[in-house]
Amino acid sequence: AGTYRIAVIPGDGIGTEVMPEGLRVLDAVSRRFGIAFEYQHIEWASCDYYQKHGRMMPDDWKVQLAGCDAILFGAVGWPAKVPDHISLWGSLLKFRREFDQYINLRPARLFEGVSSPLAGRRAGDIDFWIVRENTEGEYSSVGGVMFEGTDREFVVQESIFTRRGSERVLKFAFDLAQRRARKKLTVATKSNGIAISMPWWDERAAEVAAGYPDVTWDKQHIDILCARFVLNPDRFDVVVATNLFGDILSDLGPACTGTIGLAPSANLNPDRAFPSLFEPVHGSAPDIAGKNIANPIAMIWSAAMMLDFLGQHQGKAREAHDAILAAIEATLREGPRTGDLGGKASTAEVGAAIAERV
Amino acid sequence: AGTYRIAVIPGDGIGTEVMPEGLRVLDAVSRRFGIAFEYQHIEWASCDYYQKHGRMMPDDWKVQLAGCDAILFGAVGWPAKVPDHISLWGSLLKFRREFDQYINLRPARLFEGVSSPLAGRRAGDIDFWIVRENTEGEYSSVGGVMFEGTDREFVVQESIFTRRGSERVLKFAFDLAQRRARKKLTVATKSNGIAISMPWWDERAAEVAAGYPDVTWDKQHIDILCARFVLNPDRFDVVVATNLFGDILSDLGPACTGTIGLAPSANLNPDRAFPSLFEPVHGSAPDIAGKNIANPIAMIWSAAMMLDFLGQHQGKAREAHDAILAAIEATLREGPRTGDLGGKASTAEVGAAIAERV
Ligand SMILES: CC(C)[C@H](C(=O)O)[C@@H](O)C(=O)O
Ligand SMILES: CC(C)[C@H](C(=O)O)[C@@H](O)C(=O)O
Repeated sequence: AGTYRIAVIPGDGIGTEVMPEGLRVLDAVSRRFGIAFEYQHIEWASCDYYQKHGRMMPDDWKVQLAGCDAILFGAVGWPAKVPDHISLWGSLLKFRREFDQYINLRPARLFEGVSSPLAGRRAGDIDFWIVRENTEGEYSSVGGVMFEGTDREFVVQESIFTRRGSERVLKFAFDLAQRRARKKLTVATKSNGIAISMPWWDERAAEVAAGYPDVTWDKQHIDILCARFVLNPDRFDVVVATNLFGDILSDLGPACTGTIGLAPSANLNPDRAFPSLFEPVHGSAPDIAGKNIANPIAMIWSAAMMLDFLGQHQGKAREAHDAILAAIEATLREGPRTGDLGGKASTAEVGAAIAERV
Repeated sequence: AGTYRIAVIPGDGIGTEVMPEGLRVLDAVSRRFGIAFEYQHIEWASCDYYQKHGRMMPDDWKVQLAGCDAILFGAVGWPAKVPDHISLWGSLLKFRREFDQYINLRPARLFEGVSSPLAGRRAGDIDFWIVRENTEGEYSSVGGVMFEGTDREFVVQESIFTRRGSERVLKFAFDLAQRRARKKLTVATKSNGIAISMPWWDERAAEVAAGYPDVTWDKQHIDILCARFVLNPDRFDVVVATNLFGDILSDLGPACTGTIGLAPSANLNPDRAFPSLFEPVHGSAPDIAGKNIANPIAMIWSAAMMLDFLGQHQGKAREAHDAILAAIEATLREGPRTGDLGGKASTAEVGAAIAERV
């Protein structure tokens, strides 16, 4: 299978603490399954780099990363050092857009050994995927301020949805639903309130759905959909959403499974024209950084998602993915656990335990 | 105090079933506190009216309503009869905008006798207000489609925030927080991802906050804020948000308190230049309409909010508000209950029990 070339970007805060655990588990996988990795360690895309160089990344960042098969990312952002919109738009959001990573894929899964904030929910009750559009929509950078500093001042932010951008994320979601046992898809919308873009989005969904007669699908307005994540999370199988709605749902879904500290994410360019990026959802968490207490599971699970994507859901890479997931499950069930899950173990101890079990 | 003139609009579905219970409780209040009401019963702003007349409201709707002190509203919408965007934009959303009801105020409160979907939360643990901007922002009706039917097709929906519109909702929220015991305000934002309007909104929040040194406030991104509604709902006191974020939060908050079937809302024009509108959050619920099983509590609580607003939080109207709330609390604790709360009582039985207790 050759060698996978992985760009490794720890970034900021706990990103730098969980990344070594991700790599430790990949090493274990490499030994057990004979998968070869070549790492390109990168210190930019961090606020420390910004403080030295006045920008988040070197000018030739795209050239430097173009040859890699995937990017493994820790976390970026440290508001006390660099304002969020600079650090994020200067790195993570740039990757998403310029590498056309148009899918942001995140699971919501409740594990044995983790207690849900929802009463009476057990492992297996919550198990669905959120497919988020990741390049356009509400995050479009078009707009501006007028009459600044006067009574008439206003700001305009445009949400732009292209047919191409909407169709491809909807197709990805229908494809995913089709591969799953329940074959159920929920399309997040808000066409009763946002009266121009959202009815248009509903039409795109209906058009794409026509090609998937075996998938059961429905539309739900984002307000009631959020309520149902809490009231009936067992109803969902795959949920597809615009950039902003997907952002909201993919924090809320994991929250319903106990902690957003476990959630991984994949920023995919499914066409494989550019490298895809895999990162934990939790962010850099300055408040607990430097203490070696962060939970590395989201990072490790992100590395597993990377393997599955690299191997196109088959072969040794798929086996390695499954082995990591099983090791995560066993560790959540039997320990060791970090403080967020009521344990006392360090980041490294949990990483080592998972590597051991792989 | 004279007589309050109330426009009564039952609307569609269960709106027509819960409205009589709202009026029944107002009658009880009228007798006990000597508050006089004069009702103007209105059959338009309903899908049945649309089917007969081809529009949701008569052309002179504004003139007909201009003289009233407040509007008591049931629910509007019946997708099988009229598409949502027509029924809603032709009535409810028109009121909000044309009567400049720029505040949408909704409580999230957990009552004794109602079980929360959140594990271990008891009455008193969740008790906060959501203040939603109600006229502009993400609901602005500006935008359109280009290159329709081709590969290049795209749709633009503009979010427009005015300085005036933002400042006044922020001020309202800070004022409310200042009147409460904890004096805490959370400003919902998404300035890390939505890079033009949201940093601007953050600046407006910081400016307004400067006038309220006694209020403790913070900003939270909408994604993590939704997660915290589930993980730490006891942290919140007052939450202020843009139109869309407020819409989401004010379904999610009530969901965390057990059911959105209890939640009331006030669409306020605090300047009292136009009538304000009071309505349950639940909507018309075609699936249970016509069965006399809908829970009337959200309607009755909306009527109580109306009284409190009409009386400017004092005097007999305030006492009447408090009496209704106490009657709702007693009924939730001791019954009778409708089916959504595990009981067998009809809409009318619950309405009568609350009227009785007032
Ligand atoms: C029905 C819909 C247009 C409305 C809104 O989005 O404002 C509703 O969800 C609400 O919260 O009152
Ligand atoms: C940090 C922020 C810009 C980002 C987003 O909104 O996309 C994050 O919340 C995420 O979900 O990856």
